[in-house]
Amino acid sequence: MPRPLIALLTDFGLQDHYVGTMKGVALGICPDITFVDITHDCPPQDLQTGALELVAAYPHFPPGTIFLVVVDPGVGTSRRAIAVSAGPYTFVAPDNGVAWPAIERAGLSAAVQIREPRFARPTISPTFEGRDRFAPAAAWLSTGVALSSLGPPAGPIRHFDLPRPRISTDAIDGEVVRVDRFGNLITNIDRTAADTFARTRALSVQVGNHCAGACVECYADVIPGALCALYGSTGALEIAVNGGSAAERLGLTRGAAVRVVRGT
Amino acid sequence: MPRPLIALLTDFGLQDHYVGTMKGVALGICPDITFVDITHDCPPQDLQTGALELVAAYPHFPPGTIFLVVVDPGVGTSRRAIAVSAGPYTFVAPDNGVAWPAIERAGLSAAVQIREPRFARPTISPTFEGRDRFAPAAAWLSTGVALSSLGPPAGPIRHFDLPRPRISTDAIDGEVVRVDRFGNLITNIDRTAADTFARTRALSVQVGNHCAGACVECYADVIPGALCALYGSTGALEIAVNGGSAAERLGLTRGAAVRVVRGT
Amino acid sequence: MPRPLIALLTDFGLQDHYVGTMKGVALGICPDITFVDITHDCPPQDLQTGALELVAAYPHFPPGTIFLVVVDPGVGTSRRAIAVSAGPYTFVAPDNGVAWPAIERAGLSAAVQIREPRFARPTISPTFEGRDRFAPAAAWLSTGVALSSLGPPAGPIRHFDLPRPRISTDAIDGEVVRVDRFGNLITNIDRTAADTFARTRALSVQVGNHCAGACVECYADVIPGALCALYGSTGALEIAVNGGSAAERLGLTRGAAVRVVRGT
Repeated sequence: MPRPLIALLTDFGLQDHYVGTMKGVALGICPDITFVDITHDCPPQDLQTGALELVAAYPHFPPGTIFLVVVDPGVGTSRRAIAVSAGPYTFVAPDNGVAWPAIERAGLSAAVQIREPRFARPTISPTFEGRDRFAPAAAWLSTGVALSSLGPPAGPIRHFDLPRPRISTDAIDGEVVRVDRFGNLITNIDRTAADTFARTRALSVQVGNHCAGACVECYADVIPGALCALYGSTGALEIAVNGGSAAERLGLTRGAAVRVVRGT
Repeated sequence: MPRPLIALLTDFGLQDHYVGTMKGVALGICPDITFVDITHDCPPQDLQTGALELVAAYPHFPPGTIFLVVVDPGVGTSRRAIAVSAGPYTFVAPDNGVAWPAIERAGLSAAVQIREPRFARPTISPTFEGRDRFAPAAAWLSTGVALSSLGPPAGPIRHFDLPRPRISTDAIDGEVVRVDRFGNLITNIDRTAADTFARTRALSVQVGNHCAGACVECYADVIPGALCALYGSTGALEIAVNGGSAAERLGLTRGAAVRVVRGT
Repeated sequence: MPRPLIALLTDFGLQDHYVGTMKGVALGICPDITFVDITHDCPPQDLQTGALELVAAYPHFPPGTIFLVVVDPGVGTSRRAIAVSAGPYTFVAPDNGVAWPAIERAGLSAAVQIREPRFARPTISPTFEGRDRFAPAAAWLSTGVALSSLGPPAGPIRHFDLPRPRISTDAIDGEVVRVDRFGNLITNIDRTAADTFARTRALSVQVGNHCAGACVECYADVIPGALCALYGSTGALEIAVNGGSAAERLGLTRGAAVRVVRGT
């Protein structure tokens, strides 16, 4: 049997001991875990970034992966902790929607509340449920404990809608939803929407007051330093600068308007 | 037998190859190691932050964990390298006190100097003993080498006192000892001290010139954006802003005065 | 057999899911991999930093290590993807020279183009070959697939020359090639060159308009806050401040001129 795999996504950052402590707790329950960090650099309490990163990453993990997702503005409150089976994956997260877009795409099959005390630490800190509730639950699941052992069925869980573009007869109006390390402006417009809208490849992308032109295939299809639009690795339309940062060049960030029109 | 676990804490950061190189060296000695990074973002040479992060994290690791702690302003000098058995744990560190608060709490049982050449790299760089002395020692220990094989008994090792609050009849006077990623101001006043002082829960927390009021249970017990005081996940009193950064809001950082008084 | 070891070096940073996604893909192919991150904080598209970090780290990894190196300004173009056997190691990288200095030092023995579709993901994103081509290739190699199965011989591969110092009768003229987390200014002048030049230890190091004096053995050989020159952990001459940052103190960064002269 392959070693159990837990993929972590949090807003804890790496400057503090929090992520390491969660891993220590989990290894005390299941010493064979392989951890993969998706990211811990979500801006604090930013559910949208957490949801987007998870959606981008999860399909590339092997069946059986347990996603431990802790972006949790409601830590310590009565918001629920859930464990969800979806497709070949399991998601452990607060019931605040952060894992919803990934769960929805993977295909939810069962969801429980994490309530059973013997699968949590004896005392649960109201400021660090990642350590005391979520990490133990994920680790116990990785040992083979059944989802249903963690607690009662969750019933409906919290949804979270990622911002959707508006598609009209003349344009697709979307927005920048994520800026990556390279300064690429990643939008909520995907290739399918754009293809459906444009029928042919003759479309033109506007971002803020700038024209990024027609879509190219890769960054190097334009000269170094030039602005371009293309479909990134998740199929999302993105605005980039070859060898540079579109975010810096255009002075734009998350929320900036992006419009796709026909013609060049 | 579970795989050996080495938990690392350094001030090396992640921009350079240093941490990866230490892990490469260790895996050359013991290929089965599981590594957990506690943090590598201690400010350079900052023993206090290293000690605090280690104290917060270590009790959550399974018995047998080897802590490899390299915050080492005296690298290359005659300050000693030590390996210490304390409770169910082993600590490998420079003898500068950085691991002392954790060792003391875990219960020191044996300490040796790391001197035996066959458990180090043949040449020891005076600027990177992490690679050439500490990582090999931790890795050899993880293969089952006895602590006493690493070198002669260390005798007394260097202590390091974390700043303690002053408790008078009227107040507890402490300070901010750590600011975490969320901007929470973590103090050196713990729940036990505060409870002993206040007897009842009627106490009030002042930080800088600000009043954080009585302690609440979790961040969301106050309205979004409001200041609060509570006990964090290690039992330490902390000052926080619900959904925001107390450090930023108050313009305060490590060393800021914190006072607990009776009444509200 | 020890678990396969993949050491990663990229310019992806840790804020996005990119590194985690590559690991997820690799673990889907070979669940037993141990990963070590050398660094992911190379400045975007910076081949020189990638090459230098790799050269510094690689010799400390055990035989059999697979280095997965993705600093790739030409992603999506016709620049080749290569897998190279060199000494006891394997390097998987774009054919842009980033791995060349390490390959050269390790001793190239065979190089192939990564072309065989069954060892890549079915669709290869022109913006994320790390996920779709490089990570799968490294993972398949880690399962025991032969280098030659990945594709045809590469023939000559792209070289990349790290900046070399000029050695004249009066001086060695080099430069700062890397600034580390501690603010140490690491130069392209190594101990061998300096020893050959100076014959005796009587040499003096100048950086920018400052004199760092003769070489010392370790940082603490000078008083706290003082500037010094010494040979770092890779044998390179570096300029440091004991307990501080030479980069900050001197206001210097990569590219700053460094001169070694005889006498004190």
